[in-house]
Amino acid sequence: MRNRKKPWAQGELENNNLIIKNAEEFKGKWHLYFNNSNPIHLEIGCGKGSFITKLSQKNPNINYIALERASQVIVTGARKLRELSEENNFSGNLVFVLGNVTNLKDYFKEEELDRLYINFCDPWPRKKWAKRRLTYREFLNTYKLLLKQNSEIHFKTDNKQLFEFSLNEFCNQNWHLKNISLDLHNSNFEENIMTEYEKKFSDMGMPIYRLEAWY
Amino acid sequence: MRNRKKPWAQGELENNNLIIKNAEEFKGKWHLYFNNSNPIHLEIGCGKGSFITKLSQKNPNINYIALERASQVIVTGARKLRELSEENNFSGNLVFVLGNVTNLKDYFKEEELDRLYINFCDPWPRKKWAKRRLTYREFLNTYKLLLKQNSEIHFKTDNKQLFEFSLNEFCNQNWHLKNISLDLHNSNFEENIMTEYEKKFSDMGMPIYRLEAWY
Repeated sequence: MRNRKKPWAQGELENNNLIIKNAEEFKGKWHLYFNNSNPIHLEIGCGKGSFITKLSQKNPNINYIALERASQVIVTGARKLRELSEENNFSGNLVFVLGNVTNLKDYFKEEELDRLYINFCDPWPRKKWAKRRLTYREFLNTYKLLLKQNSEIHFKTDNKQLFEFSLNEFCNQNWHLKNISLDLHNSNFEENIMTEYEKKFSDMGMPIYRLEAWY
Repeated sequence: MRNRKKPWAQGELENNNLIIKNAEEFKGKWHLYFNNSNPIHLEIGCGKGSFITKLSQKNPNINYIALERASQVIVTGARKLRELSEENNFSGNLVFVLGNVTNLKDYFKEEELDRLYINFCDPWPRKKWAKRRLTYREFLNTYKLLLKQNSEIHFKTDNKQLFEFSLNEFCNQNWHLKNISLDLHNSNFEENIMTEYEKKFSDMGMPIYRLEAWY
């Protein structure tokens, strides 16, 4: 990783033990990592991690794993979390994982997860890129394997085309849907935690789409 | 019915035998009315009937029933249909029914219908009016009874809040959904027949929402 804007990034990545780079070794053993039997919630593509950091502070009895493939991004969230930890403001229920969603089955065993968050993922707008969208049917099949039965996916996006695609993928694969919102910030949903992207798009007046899915 | 703008309306309503005013008497016997065993498709709230008239011309082997509660509106579609009939441009597969959706079970027996169309129905925007929306759970339960198994509801609206409400109602009542569109006129859906309202709203640049549901 080379990053002129973040001269500290390489050191953070190497030395921050809140970034796991060998998630394969924890497959089936995440409860040992957290040293408890609390539910495990995963965010795929956590970016700088502000969403999942807030969520983890709100719910100390849930374990959170924040997956991100971009090392130059993950270090920002991990640094903040390390600082919280040094200030004794961290209860140990969140860890960052440097990894790729395409390797998800290497990181988690079947039914190891209790919830999945997907927030503002890349819409991959061209039709030939559909397979890369995180709600493409093959990904949904992987999530189904790794989630316990009736566990939920919580999905948010500002991209109407991606949301439409996702509604159809979930329905075509026989997932159940609930709490579908076509304009989250003008809805009755009160528990929302905003991501960095969400704040930006929402401030621009764009509607935010959201759904919950389970199988 | 008094209508200053349509002095012919009362006469049309009384004398046009393509408007059925006593639909109760045909319950369970619609095949006798059409004199064949073709599938029966119902549109609820057909307005002036241009959608279902075009559809019936496109599909002579399907029987269509166009339900509308407003007599001053139904006469317009029925008059056009009568004129088509007099020009020998009508194959007898469409009839208008003056009636109310709340009496649907009086007009049709269980599993008598093969498809339902609901186009641009009143969104009843206030929360306390939710029960009047045509996709409210009680209506869905009635439709379920009257439709054959796996038969579809095709639903269109320009109203985002109504569409969001409908998505959730269908999902919460365990209907299956497919071909969900959040912007019908910029989608790949090619078979669309526009209603009067749809043309108006679409020309104003408003997106049209659509879904297909089955149980």
